[in-house]
Amino acid sequence: MNILVTNDDGVFAKGIKVLVENLKQAGHNVYVSAPLEEQSGMGHGITLHTPLRMQRAERDGVFFGYSVSGKPADSVKIGLLEAFKDIEMDYVISGINRGANLGTDMFYSGTFGAAAEGAFSGKKSIALSLVLSGDDAYFETAGKFITSFLDKISEIDFPQDSMLNINVPNIPHTELKGFKFTKQGNKKFLDDIIEREDTQGNTYYWLGGKPHEIGDEDDNDFIAVKNGYVSITPVKLVLDSDEFKDVLINKMKK
Amino acid sequence: MNILVTNDDGVFAKGIKVLVENLKQAGHNVYVSAPLEEQSGMGHGITLHTPLRMQRAERDGVFFGYSVSGKPADSVKIGLLEAFKDIEMDYVISGINRGANLGTDMFYSGTFGAAAEGAFSGKKSIALSLVLSGDDAYFETAGKFITSFLDKISEIDFPQDSMLNINVPNIPHTELKGFKFTKQGNKKFLDDIIEREDTQGNTYYWLGGKPHEIGDEDDNDFIAVKNGYVSITPVKLVLDSDEFKDVLINKMKK
Repeated sequence: MNILVTNDDGVFAKGIKVLVENLKQAGHNVYVSAPLEEQSGMGHGITLHTPLRMQRAERDGVFFGYSVSGKPADSVKIGLLEAFKDIEMDYVISGINRGANLGTDMFYSGTFGAAAEGAFSGKKSIALSLVLSGDDAYFETAGKFITSFLDKISEIDFPQDSMLNINVPNIPHTELKGFKFTKQGNKKFLDDIIEREDTQGNTYYWLGGKPHEIGDEDDNDFIAVKNGYVSITPVKLVLDSDEFKDVLINKMKK
Repeated sequence: MNILVTNDDGVFAKGIKVLVENLKQAGHNVYVSAPLEEQSGMGHGITLHTPLRMQRAERDGVFFGYSVSGKPADSVKIGLLEAFKDIEMDYVISGINRGANLGTDMFYSGTFGAAAEGAFSGKKSIALSLVLSGDDAYFETAGKFITSFLDKISEIDFPQDSMLNINVPNIPHTELKGFKFTKQGNKKFLDDIIEREDTQGNTYYWLGGKPHEIGDEDDNDFIAVKNGYVSITPVKLVLDSDEFKDVLINKMKK
């Protein structure tokens, strides 16, 4: 299959290299268009008011793909419309992100945003993240998982504006317990804010907050990963709510 | 009511001033915490790895609110947790944005992202945008509309992780036809990319694309605004899809 690969950690990150290597080993044609620089936390932004540059990027002395001077979603657009415009892509895969994109992280994540852009462009799209904890990063676990999972879903059409958000536990591949289809978990943070003074006596603030898990449902994305399963959240990129609409219609003052 | 006001065009933008003035005239207590600089297209980003600064901002020689050296969602956090931590806020309202946030714009918009942050923090939250076209900006139309709408919904609890995404046509208030509850419209773009050379002979690209409307449903957010109605999309910030999950479970290879 023809696969456009992108990420939000930048074209020279470790995770994207492991992803590309695993996809190639599985026989896929892989095309890379990724941000030049790390773009974590850039969400789904698209650059409309600034020109974008595209450059050839080499890794280990050979052509790896194109770097784009923009956001993750920009590199998907450039990849589909310019860099590889003559290739009919079967998938857009964004990752392997260094860090979890679970629960409401989906609303903040550049990795997720790049895959969402792929979905809006009509491509089967996947965001792939490694749920890091500790020093060792088992990117290979995510790389091996995704190639076997692509085989399983190769003949499935994705519904319109839908995508998969996949999070892989940071453990050796042999220790994976399998995968679960999950829902967006509701992990709240015990908000915290630190007030400090700099060397000039000016106040500054750090946002923080300890994660504070709510729920223990078997299909919660956080819980699945915690229990050693790959979490696969089938996503539809549609936000309107009939439930809330009904509340409003029934209770509004005339 | 106590209302935290923020935006993504920055604390000195026109739209936020019109919003504050209208809310105050309607008798509300208004507290401003907004980005120091324009943050359009920053989506839902949160700043965790950089310190934030908060400063008093004056407009027309009097205290207007606090500016925050971060993203729209940061200013909501700072507003709730630090700047006005002793005030129990009834609402978080983000706007009035200079430009539409319709359809899939919700996934890119800083205005929407700030309101989403308010919703995740458990506050009734609203993103308010003016659908600009042409030179005149009828911010007053949006300001008048929101104050009357708040009266209508004042006794309604919002469901968890829910918010309202409101888009106001850029016409005089007297020409508004009313409001409609809408769904996220599916407006695709005929993608376009322009390739140019700079003065040094280096290639650069502009992303573009003409809007290409699909659908004419009465409850499509684009169509409502086009027909002179305020579009109110009740939103639930949950992305998982049972429909797509069922497709996968029924068709996956074992």
